[in-house]
Amino acid sequence: MTEKAPIVTALIQGKDTKGIIATITSWIFDNGGNIVYLDQHTDPVEDMFFMRIRWDMDGFQVAREELDEEFGKVCWRLGMAHRLFFSDRRKRLAIMVSKQGHCLLDILYRWRSGQLEIDIPCIISNHEDLRDMAGYYNIPYHYLTVDKTSKPEQEAKVLEIFREMKVDTIILARYMQILTAKFVHAYRNSIINIHHSFLPAFVGANPYLQAFKRGVKIIGATSHYVTEELDQGPIIYQDVVTVTHRDNVETLKRKGQDIERVVLARAVSMHVENRVLIHNGKTVIFGG
Amino acid sequence: MTEKAPIVTALIQGKDTKGIIATITSWIFDNGGNIVYLDQHTDPVEDMFFMRIRWDMDGFQVAREELDEEFGKVCWRLGMAHRLFFSDRRKRLAIMVSKQGHCLLDILYRWRSGQLEIDIPCIISNHEDLRDMAGYYNIPYHYLTVDKTSKPEQEAKVLEIFREMKVDTIILARYMQILTAKFVHAYRNSIINIHHSFLPAFVGANPYLQAFKRGVKIIGATSHYVTEELDQGPIIYQDVVTVTHRDNVETLKRKGQDIERVVLARAVSMHVENRVLIHNGKTVIFGG
Amino acid sequence: MTEKAPIVTALIQGKDTKGIIATITSWIFDNGGNIVYLDQHTDPVEDMFFMRIRWDMDGFQVAREELDEEFGKVCWRLGMAHRLFFSDRRKRLAIMVSKQGHCLLDILYRWRSGQLEIDIPCIISNHEDLRDMAGYYNIPYHYLTVDKTSKPEQEAKVLEIFREMKVDTIILARYMQILTAKFVHAYRNSIINIHHSFLPAFVGANPYLQAFKRGVKIIGATSHYVTEELDQGPIIYQDVVTVTHRDNVETLKRKGQDIERVVLARAVSMHVENRVLIHNGKTVIFGG
Amino acid sequence: MTEKAPIVTALIQGKDTKGIIATITSWIFDNGGNIVYLDQHTDPVEDMFFMRIRWDMDGFQVAREELDEEFGKVCWRLGMAHRLFFSDRRKRLAIMVSKQGHCLLDILYRWRSGQLEIDIPCIISNHEDLRDMAGYYNIPYHYLTVDKTSKPEQEAKVLEIFREMKVDTIILARYMQILTAKFVHAYRNSIINIHHSFLPAFVGANPYLQAFKRGVKIIGATSHYVTEELDQGPIIYQDVVTVTHRDNVETLKRKGQDIERVVLARAVSMHVENRVLIHNGKTVIFGG
Repeated sequence: MTEKAPIVTALIQGKDTKGIIATITSWIFDNGGNIVYLDQHTDPVEDMFFMRIRWDMDGFQVAREELDEEFGKVCWRLGMAHRLFFSDRRKRLAIMVSKQGHCLLDILYRWRSGQLEIDIPCIISNHEDLRDMAGYYNIPYHYLTVDKTSKPEQEAKVLEIFREMKVDTIILARYMQILTAKFVHAYRNSIINIHHSFLPAFVGANPYLQAFKRGVKIIGATSHYVTEELDQGPIIYQDVVTVTHRDNVETLKRKGQDIERVVLARAVSMHVENRVLIHNGKTVIFGG
Repeated sequence: MTEKAPIVTALIQGKDTKGIIATITSWIFDNGGNIVYLDQHTDPVEDMFFMRIRWDMDGFQVAREELDEEFGKVCWRLGMAHRLFFSDRRKRLAIMVSKQGHCLLDILYRWRSGQLEIDIPCIISNHEDLRDMAGYYNIPYHYLTVDKTSKPEQEAKVLEIFREMKVDTIILARYMQILTAKFVHAYRNSIINIHHSFLPAFVGANPYLQAFKRGVKIIGATSHYVTEELDQGPIIYQDVVTVTHRDNVETLKRKGQDIERVVLARAVSMHVENRVLIHNGKTVIFGG
Repeated sequence: MTEKAPIVTALIQGKDTKGIIATITSWIFDNGGNIVYLDQHTDPVEDMFFMRIRWDMDGFQVAREELDEEFGKVCWRLGMAHRLFFSDRRKRLAIMVSKQGHCLLDILYRWRSGQLEIDIPCIISNHEDLRDMAGYYNIPYHYLTVDKTSKPEQEAKVLEIFREMKVDTIILARYMQILTAKFVHAYRNSIINIHHSFLPAFVGANPYLQAFKRGVKIIGATSHYVTEELDQGPIIYQDVVTVTHRDNVETLKRKGQDIERVVLARAVSMHVENRVLIHNGKTVIFGG
Repeated sequence: MTEKAPIVTALIQGKDTKGIIATITSWIFDNGGNIVYLDQHTDPVEDMFFMRIRWDMDGFQVAREELDEEFGKVCWRLGMAHRLFFSDRRKRLAIMVSKQGHCLLDILYRWRSGQLEIDIPCIISNHEDLRDMAGYYNIPYHYLTVDKTSKPEQEAKVLEIFREMKVDTIILARYMQILTAKFVHAYRNSIINIHHSFLPAFVGANPYLQAFKRGVKIIGATSHYVTEELDQGPIIYQDVVTVTHRDNVETLKRKGQDIERVVLARAVSMHVENRVLIHNGKTVIFGG
C-alpha cells in the first residue's frame, strides 16, 4: 500500500462560470494524471457549481507536498474553493455516545471488518454503559459526566482530547446531549449526528413518542451535520420503515433503531469517502 | 349478484372488556352465520377494543332489515359502538378537485376498470380545467367558484348537491381549498384528503418548495381524514420516494405526484372496504 | 414474573368449516379466559383456516398441565390441528455460522439488549473465526469441521448437542453448508435460513455475483424455513435495497449484508413470537 | 423556443484510456461551449469508460450540421463511440399495447401534462380494447391482429407504419406478444418493455400467479430493453411493493400494476432524457 501512489480526491465549489471542467481536467491531464472519477452538479437556483474529481497520483508531475498549493492556484483563478484528500490518509473519527449501543456497535463492526477505512482514536461518553463494548474493540473510552453547569468544562476536556488525538470528524452515535455553539464551531461541517426521526418531522426529544401520538404509518431516521440550531443541519441521508396501529412506543423504537444504525453508517461512509459538499444548509452527495 | 346473499361487515369499538369476541362470534354462530373474516386490536394504552368481523348473510336467521337493531343490542350490552355495511350496497363517493388531474384520473381509471367498487355521483371543482376528464368518464361536473367571501355560500351549494346525490364519502383529490368547520362536521370522518408531504413534516402550502429548501433526501405523501385543524386529521396511509440534490421543485413535484395518487387510492380502498376505525385522532387499519 | 400467570398463544390450522371462531372463543370465555389477541385468515383457494389466538391464563379454569389435552379436544372436533405456547417458556435457539459475523452479531446484540426473548444455548461453526464474538457474549462455541465425507458424522454430533441442550429452533446465520435431508427432517419447520438474494431470483451460490452480472437495480435478502430443496422453503420475510451501475460485487455484498441481518432478525422475531403458520410451502404471518 | 440555441447531449463509451475527459471538455471549451452537465463512469471489470456530457450550443463555434462529424473525429481519436441529441428535437415513441390500459393511460397522461416531452405518432394493438383511450388523446390507433402464422406479416406492417411515422423508440406498454428477432433487430436497444415481475424472478407468462404460488412477501416490476432472449435484456429500472398472505392473484395484480406504470414511466424518462448507456447486457444510468 505504501509503495503504490495514492488516488487524490478534490472537492470544488463556487459560483458557476464557463470552462471550469475543461480547465481543471486539462490541468490534470497536462500534468500526467489519470482521472478515475468525475461528477459535477450545477445548481441553477443558487447559480453554484460543485465537483468531485479523483485522479491517480502515479507519475503525476506535481509533487504531493505542492499539490494543494498548485491545484489551489487553478481553482482560485476560477473563483472556486477546493479541498484535497489522499487515499492513503485515513480520516480520524471520534465517537460520542450516551447509553444506547446499537449505533456504536454497528460502526465498530464495520470498522473491524474493513468496511469503514477510518481510524477511531477514542470514544467519549457521559455514561459508563458502553465501556465494555469499547473494550472489546480495544478503543480508549473516556467517561466525562455532564450537566448544565459543567457542560463548558466537559466540552473543553473533550476538545482537548480530540486535539491530542488529531480527530477530524465526530460521530454522535446517539449522544443525548446538545452541544454548545462553541463546540459546533470547532468542528464545523464535521460533526455527524443521527436523529431518530424523519426530519423535519418530530424535531427534538422523544420522536418515537411524538410519532406514536400522531399515528404516522411510517417512521424514519435522519443523519445530518450538526449546526447551532437543533436538528436543522444539512441532511446527509434518510431512510424510513413502515409501522402500523399495532406498534407501541417500544416497538417503534426497535424498528427505528434498525434504520438509525444503517442511516448513520451510510452517512459516515459518504463523509469518509469525501462524497459530500455543503452549501446553504443543504448537501450535494456524489455517487460512490 | 342480486340473488346471492351479501356479506355483512361490522366495525366495533369501545372500552376493552372480557368476552367481547366470544359473545359476538357466538351470537353470529348461533344465528347460523359463517364468519369469513375477523381481526381485532386491543390498545392497552387507551384500554380500547377494536374489531372488524364479516359474515355471510346466506341463511342467517336475523333478517337484513332487523340486523342493525339486533346486532346493536348485543354490542350495547358489551358497551361497544358498532356500524354495519352490506357488500351489495356501494358507497357513494363525490370527488372535489381544483386544477391538477393526476389523482382524479387515477381514481376514475380504477373505478372504470372495476378495482374500486363505488358509485361516483359527481365531481365538484372550483375550476373548469378537469371538466373534459369528467366528461370522458360520464360523470356530472359542477363548477362552483369560491373565494373567502363566497365560501359559506359555495359550501352550502356543495352540501346540497351531496344531499341530493346521497353522497356518503368525499375525496379531496388535490382540492386546494380549506373547508370550513361546518362543512367538515357535516361529513365527519368521511372526508379523505391527500396531502403532498410526509406529515407531520411540511404542513400547509407548498410542501415541495419547503422540502426543496430543507434539502430532504426523501419526500412523501399522506392521506388522512379531514378535521377542523389543517393537516392534523387521522392518517390513513403514507408512502415516500427518494430524491437527490439534482431534484428541483418541479421534479420533486413530479416524483411526488406518482406517490400522491397511489397513496390516495390505497386510502380510498381501505375506507371503501370498511377497514378503517378511528379513535383519538388515529386510525386502526385492518388487513384486506 | 414467576408469580404472574402467563399468556398462552394458540396456533390453529385446518380445513375451513363453520363455527370455528365461535366455538373456540366461547370455550375460552366459558373457562374464564380473557382473549388478548385474535387474528385469523381464510384461504379460499386452499379452503384452509388459520388462527392465532392469545389469552390470559390468570384465573383460567383449565390447569396449565391439562390445557393441551383439553384445548386439543376442542380443536379435534373442529378438525383443526393446534399448538400451544406459554409466554413464560422461552424458545431455545441454536445458531449455526461459518465465517461471516454480521448476522450473528446482530442476533446476539438483540438478545443481550432484551429485544429477543430467547435462550441461546450454543453456537455451532465449521470455522474458528467467530469464537471470539461468541466468547464476548458468553455462549458456548462448538467448532466442528465438515466436508462431503464427514457431513453425516458432523451433523450427528450437532444433533446430539442440540438434543442435550434442548434446542427447539435453529438459525442459520450465514452457515455456508447445505444440510442433509435427515438433518432437515429432525427440525422440520424449525430451521430458519437467511439467503442473500431476493428469492426466487439467484438461487444457490454467489447471488451477489449473479446479481452483478445480470445488472439488476435492486438486490434483496430472504429469510425462509429450510426444506430439503435448496432455497425453496416457505418464505418468512424479505427486504430489498436499490443499487446502481456504480456498485461492484463487493459493494453489493456490503449493501446486502445490511438487509440480511435485519431480514433474519425480523424472521426470527416472527417465529419466536409464534406468529408464523405454514401450509403448502407458504407462510401465514400474523401481526405482532 | 425556436429562437433559443439548443442544449446538446453527447453519450460516449469505449475502452478506458487516459485523457478522455480532458480532451473532450477542452474541445468543447475551446469552441466556446458552456458545459451544463457531465457525469462519467469507469467500469474497472470491463475496463470501459462511459460519459454523458451536455453543453449549450449558444455561441458554439461548430455549426449544428457539422457537429456530429467534428465531435465524432475527437471521439474517434480516443477510440470512443458517440451519439448526439439536441434538446429541440423530440424523440418519436410508438406505443404497442394489448388489452390492459393502465400503462398506456399513464404515459398518455404524462405526455399530455407536459412531463414527457416526446411525440407519440401512433399506438399499435392486437386488440380493439384501448381504441377509445387513444381517441380521447387524439392519437392514431392501428388494430393489427396477430397469431403465430400471421406474426411475420403483422410485424412487417408495424415496421412499415413506424418507418412512415419516423418512430425511433418503441414502448411495449403491456403488449402481450413476443417479438421476432427480426423485429427486435430493427429497433435494437430502442424497444422498452415492462415486465410484471422483479426480474430475473418469474420470467415469462403469468408472473403474479408464479409469485402467489411461491409465497413471496414482495413483488416487483422491471423495465428493460428488449433483446432476442425473452426477459433477458438490459434492465433500466425496477421497483417493488410488499404483499402478504392475504393477497390473492387478483390483488397481487392490482398492487403490481401500480408499480408497473411508474417503473415504465421512469424508464421511458431515462431513455428520453438520453441518460442510458448499454454495455454487455447491462445499463449505465446517469443522474437526471
